[in-house]
Amino acid sequence: MIIVLKTGATPEQINHICEKVKELGLTPQVSRGVERTIIGVIGEEAKIRVQPLEVYPGVERVMPIQKPYKLASREFRPESTVFTMANGVKVGGDQIVVMAGPCAVEGADVLMRIAGEVKKAGAAFLRGGAFKPRTSPYSFQGLGEEGLKYLREAGDRFGLLVVTEVMDTRTVELVSKYADMLQIGARNMQNFDLLKEVGVSKKPVLLKRGLSSTIQELLLSAEYLLSKGNFKVMLCERGIRTFETATRNTVDINAVPVLKEQTHLPVLVDPSHGTGKREYVIAVARAAVAAGADGIMVEVHDNPEEAKSDGPQSLYPEQCADLVRQLRPIATAIGRSL
Amino acid sequence: MIIVLKTGATPEQINHICEKVKELGLTPQVSRGVERTIIGVIGEEAKIRVQPLEVYPGVERVMPIQKPYKLASREFRPESTVFTMANGVKVGGDQIVVMAGPCAVEGADVLMRIAGEVKKAGAAFLRGGAFKPRTSPYSFQGLGEEGLKYLREAGDRFGLLVVTEVMDTRTVELVSKYADMLQIGARNMQNFDLLKEVGVSKKPVLLKRGLSSTIQELLLSAEYLLSKGNFKVMLCERGIRTFETATRNTVDINAVPVLKEQTHLPVLVDPSHGTGKREYVIAVARAAVAAGADGIMVEVHDNPEEAKSDGPQSLYPEQCADLVRQLRPIATAIGRSL
Amino acid sequence: MIIVLKTGATPEQINHICEKVKELGLTPQVSRGVERTIIGVIGEEAKIRVQPLEVYPGVERVMPIQKPYKLASREFRPESTVFTMANGVKVGGDQIVVMAGPCAVEGADVLMRIAGEVKKAGAAFLRGGAFKPRTSPYSFQGLGEEGLKYLREAGDRFGLLVVTEVMDTRTVELVSKYADMLQIGARNMQNFDLLKEVGVSKKPVLLKRGLSSTIQELLLSAEYLLSKGNFKVMLCERGIRTFETATRNTVDINAVPVLKEQTHLPVLVDPSHGTGKREYVIAVARAAVAAGADGIMVEVHDNPEEAKSDGPQSLYPEQCADLVRQLRPIATAIGRSL
Amino acid sequence: MIIVLKTGATPEQINHICEKVKELGLTPQVSRGVERTIIGVIGEEAKIRVQPLEVYPGVERVMPIQKPYKLASREFRPESTVFTMANGVKVGGDQIVVMAGPCAVEGADVLMRIAGEVKKAGAAFLRGGAFKPRTSPYSFQGLGEEGLKYLREAGDRFGLLVVTEVMDTRTVELVSKYADMLQIGARNMQNFDLLKEVGVSKKPVLLKRGLSSTIQELLLSAEYLLSKGNFKVMLCERGIRTFETATRNTVDINAVPVLKEQTHLPVLVDPSHGTGKREYVIAVARAAVAAGADGIMVEVHDNPEEAKSDGPQSLYPEQCADLVRQLRPIATAIGRSL
Repeated sequence: MIIVLKTGATPEQINHICEKVKELGLTPQVSRGVERTIIGVIGEEAKIRVQPLEVYPGVERVMPIQKPYKLASREFRPESTVFTMANGVKVGGDQIVVMAGPCAVEGADVLMRIAGEVKKAGAAFLRGGAFKPRTSPYSFQGLGEEGLKYLREAGDRFGLLVVTEVMDTRTVELVSKYADMLQIGARNMQNFDLLKEVGVSKKPVLLKRGLSSTIQELLLSAEYLLSKGNFKVMLCERGIRTFETATRNTVDINAVPVLKEQTHLPVLVDPSHGTGKREYVIAVARAAVAAGADGIMVEVHDNPEEAKSDGPQSLYPEQCADLVRQLRPIATAIGRSL
Repeated sequence: MIIVLKTGATPEQINHICEKVKELGLTPQVSRGVERTIIGVIGEEAKIRVQPLEVYPGVERVMPIQKPYKLASREFRPESTVFTMANGVKVGGDQIVVMAGPCAVEGADVLMRIAGEVKKAGAAFLRGGAFKPRTSPYSFQGLGEEGLKYLREAGDRFGLLVVTEVMDTRTVELVSKYADMLQIGARNMQNFDLLKEVGVSKKPVLLKRGLSSTIQELLLSAEYLLSKGNFKVMLCERGIRTFETATRNTVDINAVPVLKEQTHLPVLVDPSHGTGKREYVIAVARAAVAAGADGIMVEVHDNPEEAKSDGPQSLYPEQCADLVRQLRPIATAIGRSL
Repeated sequence: MIIVLKTGATPEQINHICEKVKELGLTPQVSRGVERTIIGVIGEEAKIRVQPLEVYPGVERVMPIQKPYKLASREFRPESTVFTMANGVKVGGDQIVVMAGPCAVEGADVLMRIAGEVKKAGAAFLRGGAFKPRTSPYSFQGLGEEGLKYLREAGDRFGLLVVTEVMDTRTVELVSKYADMLQIGARNMQNFDLLKEVGVSKKPVLLKRGLSSTIQELLLSAEYLLSKGNFKVMLCERGIRTFETATRNTVDINAVPVLKEQTHLPVLVDPSHGTGKREYVIAVARAAVAAGADGIMVEVHDNPEEAKSDGPQSLYPEQCADLVRQLRPIATAIGRSL
Repeated sequence: MIIVLKTGATPEQINHICEKVKELGLTPQVSRGVERTIIGVIGEEAKIRVQPLEVYPGVERVMPIQKPYKLASREFRPESTVFTMANGVKVGGDQIVVMAGPCAVEGADVLMRIAGEVKKAGAAFLRGGAFKPRTSPYSFQGLGEEGLKYLREAGDRFGLLVVTEVMDTRTVELVSKYADMLQIGARNMQNFDLLKEVGVSKKPVLLKRGLSSTIQELLLSAEYLLSKGNFKVMLCERGIRTFETATRNTVDINAVPVLKEQTHLPVLVDPSHGTGKREYVIAVARAAVAAGADGIMVEVHDNPEEAKSDGPQSLYPEQCADLVRQLRPIATAIGRSL
């Protein structure tokens, strides 16, 4: 950590800060420049991060050197994390995983039909929301446990893994009973009680990046899961909020190589939420695989006219099959498979 | 609602959409332009909002005319909401309320000292976090129920109302036992289960705007509370996330007149989180009152060097007193009091 | 165009607006809803766009239906624009073009060396700035005409086309003398006098998207060029400004399919400025090609330690060769060549 | 400047960097931490800023300590800049200046009428565009020199100073002939050739912040002017681009105290462009004065129905008078006058 002092910092102020640094078991190193003095702090930065050094008299700015997360970093674990699901499917390995299904579970029959289609297309996971986070209280809020049952049935029938969102600390146990992977949605990325509860559950997790969360904040939220002993965490870039209104969100494609560099955790991209328009989903999915993503999550519906949410961004089943067909040569081009 | 059709939309497609609109008990009105045909939908827009019309063949775009929230709108309730707290303090009235206190409750003594100071300065509410949402799992997470007790004691001792954050559906009841007003933090603005639970509790609520939430989304989250019968809701602008890094967040001062126009609910501004730097807090607080805010929330600490969070943006007690002194003539200038 | 009236709009107000619409030679169509009345305007929307209807008494909102640009739209020209450069290289065709070179022209020798390297790697265009837009007045501002001469020499020696930035209306003629393609930089995307001057020049243009310009604004800036009769325009996505700080900018990968849908003009992606870090350039370049971009522009320097600008994002020559090697199978995978 | 090395940086790499630092006449100071080594650079940071240290082998990050601008900083000139216009009006002093007038100059009569009204309301400057930067090539582009003449006539008739935009290096001289103050618009804030030309002209300047420019970039653009010897520069916050769509832009009210702290230059706020809606202009203008702005610029039109641009955000003349009436007690409240 570097402490930059104000131009007129006094020797007393400098001493005061150095004393504090030593109290914490760290070593201060004072460096007097032409315009300013700076103090380097040698030692474990986490110790001093709890101390609000910015408020000390004479301090202008405090600049951290070390990353604030540990377990999620590549430095902690240089090799990429690969974890194996109950049915043997590997997440984070050479094979790129496809997760597909309706935005929301709307009924047993429609889900079963769609599940059959996405299986045929080549998906490994069935996605679908039983608990739906909806901006408006007047929108369809999901089928709850009934929806979870349908998901499990469809997953079992077609040999698909089930990934579904958990929104409330009180339902982590319930959702865990039915799902193979728990999804933490973008709006809950910093719902820290939920993160702790899901961390304790030890279930595989899909952690979605918040609409306006930085990559560092995403990794800190992952750290909540990892620090509870749950390392089966996949991160998901699903578009961030920017000024651009031509698409629902802006897929931060840079985040793929940045995450692959900074963390060992596998990375998924969701071009359905990332674009909000069916017409753009396949092109952006191709881009994600080309950039190095370990998987793709897309929304699929066989009758978007009747979809209870996110119809405009849902692929038709035949488009889902086409998506997989288009992703395969891209995967091959970068030495992976699908 | 206006449905804009694609340039080449066929008569069959147009009929299909009109049929659907009629099925919902609404009236379609077709208008053929030079380049495009559009269909106006007459009737209660909420009915058709559940229908994903964008996915119908031939549709290019769907443009809502009515606002998606109802109870929170000025149209629903033209006069401004004023609600009275247990001790008679009015929120939303002519008198501007000041909420002040430490970011986190750190101990009984320090809280008691700060409470005495903010009371003396002129605050009506004592703020302080017992449950803290922290970006990093390694940061101080709050004292929990112990902190709530200290808050209650300090509030009772100095005749201050207590406002504190609730983060988890499971602790709404607990926090309600001690607090006069429940705060829903920025990161939980779209934690819909929490909104429902707090709505049911009927406790006065301070609902903070999410870091990247639009004003409309803020009002939809308020609608969650109102639709559960809880109308004692104060909204809080606390800075949004932008590209600017000179301050921690960007206070959206425009939001004050926009909210005063669109909703009857009272509006608070939090310049401490909004700027992230003590030096800017008073100037922005003055701006907020001048713009028409019904209250100000600031962080105060008598020893920021030892504050467990947000030290750099906490005012010293004497600055808090100065803040109130500076706000008074501004309040008078716009015909209010403090 | 749709004119949405306020809830209490009077018949007189409605008449007043309808009269105005008729005066402009257009047809108003009034539609009375339950909550609101709306007026649809039939006819050429451009006529009414000059009229500030929002200010008419009784008007709440005005919603355009037609796009504000014409010549740049796919509707105007359904087939994709392909234009041929002096040496026969096609821009916008099946073959993906690579533009590479140093950020700034720093001297004759270094440029010649780099030009040789990028030619060998497979680039068709040599890029390099002679006039440099620099945030600070104290940064290197470019070699001016001397730099243009070096570019021309290097281009001629290696059979590379030259693309370079023009910043000032007064130097359009000068830059046109040396360059094959004029680049309008991100900071000048809305320098309208410059756009007009470059439009008149009829030189092929590379128009970079502004840091915070919407896709629609980019197309309107292109319209400035097209409306002067210059249709040899290539658009460039080079990263937008968002809250994320892990990379210099955020490449808006969605923009590629959006632009391919909305305009007939070819699209380039610049992953060097888009990421700001050499380590991420190749991954994002692969993504761009996979998403459908017609070309890639990258910065290359053989001694970034001595580069006068943008060293950290410049590829080494061997990385440039590797980039092309990695892009080829991606191009093949989507049915194109490179 | 602090150079943070990668975890595995070798002694050779460290030496290589230290040598480079010494070559530039600066002193490196190596500090070996537990996880990382850092090198502090003692001396004039500007010297090393030209050197792209990020690209040196072993370097992870380079963190500047000093500000990249000099003449614009408070440190360079601690007292606030106050400059006096031709007619004795002071900019940056205790008295808050109001600039008002139509968005564009549309004709002699209408301008004369509006000028009379804004004078009566209490404005010191008449604003109005003769050269208009318009997003679309099909929008009204301004009257050019004719408009400048009308401005001068109106200014002279009513004793108002004239401020108007200059967009092109080729017209700086022309505009300077008629105007008292040159405005550099948001879209041209980084049109560096224009900045240089206006710097040389020595005319008082109003420099508007770009839509997505940071405060630091604004100060660097000011530095372009100052470094050419022109210190009569007023900065203008006119709203930045964010995700919020309820208003045209988001006024960054924080920028007022930040600028007052970091620079000696006077600060203006433009709530017309900052909000884009007449209804919000007065509230935000009050906020700006309360926050410490040295002036306000607003658009005024006596017949917005016929305004050729920005009608919806233009105040009526009586509202302009009301604005000044409302600003006066706020100015008094903070110890200033208007």
